[in-house]
Amino acid sequence: MIDSGSNPNQCRIIVDAMGGDFAPKNVVLGALQAQSENPNIEVYLAGDSKLILDVITYENLTFDKEKIIHAEQKIEMNDSPTVSLKTKPASSLVVGAKWVRDKKAEALVSAGNTGAMMAASTLIMGRIPGVGRPTIGAEMPSAKGICYLYDVGAGKDAKPNHLFEYAIMGSIFAREMGGVKNPSIGVLSMGEEEGKGNDVSEEAAKLLKDSKLNFIGNVEGRDILEGKADVVVCDGFVGNIILKFGESVPKFLKYLLQQTAKKNLFDKLKIGLTRGSLRKALKVLDYQEYGGVPLLGVNGISIIGHGSSTPKAFKNMVFRAYEIHTKNLLSKIENSIKQYSNLS
Amino acid sequence: MIDSGSNPNQCRIIVDAMGGDFAPKNVVLGALQAQSENPNIEVYLAGDSKLILDVITYENLTFDKEKIIHAEQKIEMNDSPTVSLKTKPASSLVVGAKWVRDKKAEALVSAGNTGAMMAASTLIMGRIPGVGRPTIGAEMPSAKGICYLYDVGAGKDAKPNHLFEYAIMGSIFAREMGGVKNPSIGVLSMGEEEGKGNDVSEEAAKLLKDSKLNFIGNVEGRDILEGKADVVVCDGFVGNIILKFGESVPKFLKYLLQQTAKKNLFDKLKIGLTRGSLRKALKVLDYQEYGGVPLLGVNGISIIGHGSSTPKAFKNMVFRAYEIHTKNLLSKIENSIKQYSNLS
Repeated sequence: MIDSGSNPNQCRIIVDAMGGDFAPKNVVLGALQAQSENPNIEVYLAGDSKLILDVITYENLTFDKEKIIHAEQKIEMNDSPTVSLKTKPASSLVVGAKWVRDKKAEALVSAGNTGAMMAASTLIMGRIPGVGRPTIGAEMPSAKGICYLYDVGAGKDAKPNHLFEYAIMGSIFAREMGGVKNPSIGVLSMGEEEGKGNDVSEEAAKLLKDSKLNFIGNVEGRDILEGKADVVVCDGFVGNIILKFGESVPKFLKYLLQQTAKKNLFDKLKIGLTRGSLRKALKVLDYQEYGGVPLLGVNGISIIGHGSSTPKAFKNMVFRAYEIHTKNLLSKIENSIKQYSNLS
Repeated sequence: MIDSGSNPNQCRIIVDAMGGDFAPKNVVLGALQAQSENPNIEVYLAGDSKLILDVITYENLTFDKEKIIHAEQKIEMNDSPTVSLKTKPASSLVVGAKWVRDKKAEALVSAGNTGAMMAASTLIMGRIPGVGRPTIGAEMPSAKGICYLYDVGAGKDAKPNHLFEYAIMGSIFAREMGGVKNPSIGVLSMGEEEGKGNDVSEEAAKLLKDSKLNFIGNVEGRDILEGKADVVVCDGFVGNIILKFGESVPKFLKYLLQQTAKKNLFDKLKIGLTRGSLRKALKVLDYQEYGGVPLLGVNGISIIGHGSSTPKAFKNMVFRAYEIHTKNLLSKIENSIKQYSNLS
């Protein structure tokens, strides 16, 4: 193991080489590309060392073999998250989480089984003191730029204080990573007026109203794309459904345009001509471009990627882990959570 | 009052002439147009008789003055639903609901205060025996035609048996009104596998699985536009947020295209050229075209419209009330609910 030395920006990132539909190839290509572009990044690859070496040889890459952390087991996409943590202690995912817990790396990156990644990060790395529930956010496109939606599926049946924590963590993420000054926060609800929420959202709104956070009140489903609030908090069940509904919009539009083109030759010509411009406009809806998202609230950097991640997506995930490290996001979350627990 | 006589298709519809942003003008125009197009429809107009008569005179319309039901009061859009039922017993909305309760009309149509309309219908007309909670659905466009989403805001913090009732009522609506044979039903969830829901959706899925309904399991946010199930059930809080998110998509797309056009003259020309074709394709997302939606589960036909309803929308609401009447939707719901209560 190489000592991270005295460079405070040095960041050791352990990458689950077995995670994702095109593992280990896409993982290795993306992770090594990130390392080659930023000398402060030190990549470790966890997984089947033979398969990893095959990719390195085949792709003619250079990589220090000591930084391949052999893992005998692999958590499959269909494995039960909590069961597999117990039955597969030698899996790349579990090994990676333990490296972060043991301070041998600052960050873990994986595009494997999302549930297992969340469970491994939460149970092995542990939660930041004061955090009841870690959260995953989505960066939804909006007319104002980005709407940070928390939670999109780390938890479900959340309590009001969980939504309050999501607001704290989400606004720190929006500020530090998105450059949003004093992010405005809204609670997702059925109407703007008080009383238009469900039991949990109404109670969360009260907690936020009484805090010093920049809370602007209830927001509705339409306010996400309109960008009415920088950070929108909701139960993970609701957020997950909205995220997936939103992800299905571009495909549905393509279908609608095809149907219109079929009906009328003139429409067909016009739609064909404009395809490139449409694609450009819709690029903002393509979540794959963002790489992965961090699980916020755990005691280590944990970046979760799409199963279908490309080498570019893996590179961006590693860069994101690095940025979170250099911006001290975790200690900022810890301090902020501590501050609000003292107040209440 | 005119006797409905022996024609079983005869349908008396009381229309809240004071409901909507352009009342009474749009209401009167639309309702009388519906009546003139279908001799089985007998319209009654509830509201300020002077204002209603002014429209009739100004627009040079013919209408039997005895069918204007004068109402001294008017429920405003911002009035509290439950409070206004008590403080405004002489309002057009309350008068209309009482007419249905007293069998003086088969249906009530209103584009006024939605909460008050739901409360008046539920509390004055009463619920169909066995229905715990009435529900409002949305007809979401999908790649297969229409996805019937229940509930979109009649209730919140629903219990599993409410979702089960939504499935019964929604599938009767899809079959009778949408012509869908044996509609497939999905429960909205975070994933297809069992265990991916929240407490309420998981329990509802069990009830549906044990029933003879055409239940296909959990569906995700992306499955709505893909049309994976004909009927999708969820808590009204979730459905309302998705409906409003979906409604905001066309405006957001317009914004994206404008942004792309701004950046590049060639894109601007192409997008300008194709505007008409795009508008055609997106028309399916324009929910205003549908007119109003029924509150299912109450003991009378109750059609709720958008505040901004046009005369055409009011005409379509009246037609919809008529269609629900001639198809005996209410007794079909009552029989089906009864059948399932006996089984469980």
